[in-house]
Amino acid sequence: MPRKRSPGRPGGDSEDLRRRLIDAALACYVREGVAAASIKSIAGEAGVTPALLHYYFGNRELLRQAVVEDRILPLLRGVQQELALVSGDVGTLIAAFVSAMSGAIEQNPWWPALWVREVLCEGGALREVLVEQVGRAFLDTFVQRFAQAQQQGDLNPDLDPRLLPVSLVGLTLFPAAGAPVWRQLLDAEDIDNGALQRHTLALLQRGLELRS
Amino acid sequence: MPRKRSPGRPGGDSEDLRRRLIDAALACYVREGVAAASIKSIAGEAGVTPALLHYYFGNRELLRQAVVEDRILPLLRGVQQELALVSGDVGTLIAAFVSAMSGAIEQNPWWPALWVREVLCEGGALREVLVEQVGRAFLDTFVQRFAQAQQQGDLNPDLDPRLLPVSLVGLTLFPAAGAPVWRQLLDAEDIDNGALQRHTLALLQRGLELRS
Repeated sequence: MPRKRSPGRPGGDSEDLRRRLIDAALACYVREGVAAASIKSIAGEAGVTPALLHYYFGNRELLRQAVVEDRILPLLRGVQQELALVSGDVGTLIAAFVSAMSGAIEQNPWWPALWVREVLCEGGALREVLVEQVGRAFLDTFVQRFAQAQQQGDLNPDLDPRLLPVSLVGLTLFPAAGAPVWRQLLDAEDIDNGALQRHTLALLQRGLELRS
Repeated sequence: MPRKRSPGRPGGDSEDLRRRLIDAALACYVREGVAAASIKSIAGEAGVTPALLHYYFGNRELLRQAVVEDRILPLLRGVQQELALVSGDVGTLIAAFVSAMSGAIEQNPWWPALWVREVLCEGGALREVLVEQVGRAFLDTFVQRFAQAQQQGDLNPDLDPRLLPVSLVGLTLFPAAGAPVWRQLLDAEDIDNGALQRHTLALLQRGLELRS
């Protein structure tokens, strides 16, 4: 049995099928976790035979690598590239981050739940790959820009530049991941992505604006 | 075999042992998840026989209920009671929330990771019980106080009172849960609980304080 498809660009039908198989893998990863999702359950999700999955991806581990390379890294690199193009002050950068995260989540609705299960959870299957391949460089750039802005008097001096990216993730990716819980709790089906972004920017830019 | 210990207050040794067994269950829940943690693995963690665990708690489900009642609900009710005693403005309430969460996490270091795995994760074993037994009433009180403060002009009018509790959890419990990741990424072993609280309060009270 071939471990992987032979090289060369696959035809259109074949690419569609590959995409569908990866969609099925993502659905199973979100629902069951990467470690528990078997070739059999992913094949069932896609409505194909396990043999076809084996033919396309070889084995579970190679399929996981394909999901990372085809979907997760492009998502994160897209956000990175969007932010790399932002010139100007740190306020513009932070607003662009909130907007880029919101866009990425809207286009990849599986991402917040997968991030919780496989990055945030202890022992998550994607923690190491994301930390090493994307996280470190991404964070370093942010932390440097925040520290610089602070030195120039452009950013609240009582913030910790290293903790600010953590706060930004806590105000963007976390609310998306927790949405099934808080929507149910707050009867908040009416709060859309735009309303969430406006709230987040108001909090970041001006804080609580307490009177006393 | 008795399903549960006979009624009546157990002696000191027995209480110590019960506490140790529940500690072992918590450790296994954090590491393996509630659904995967077997009586055998919890007994192994505690250094006792599975039969002893069965004698004390009956079965896996009753043990899970004991963990919820002995540890998780008291933790959350402790935070609730601390906040119920806060009189004064909404700024005092929010500062008290940040401080109460920080204290609860310090005293129950297993809580952030367990919350991620069993409340935030889709299909988490504790989501329903926490949402119904604690979450709804807790959130309602907060949302009402925020809405009232806003009407009185005491709180940033562009915030959504329903989303503010979500932001507060994203700035307290989420950073605690993500600490193993961001500490590694940021070489931030030096950032202690106090520094995290000061950063969070500075961000909440004054926002980014952008110059332009």
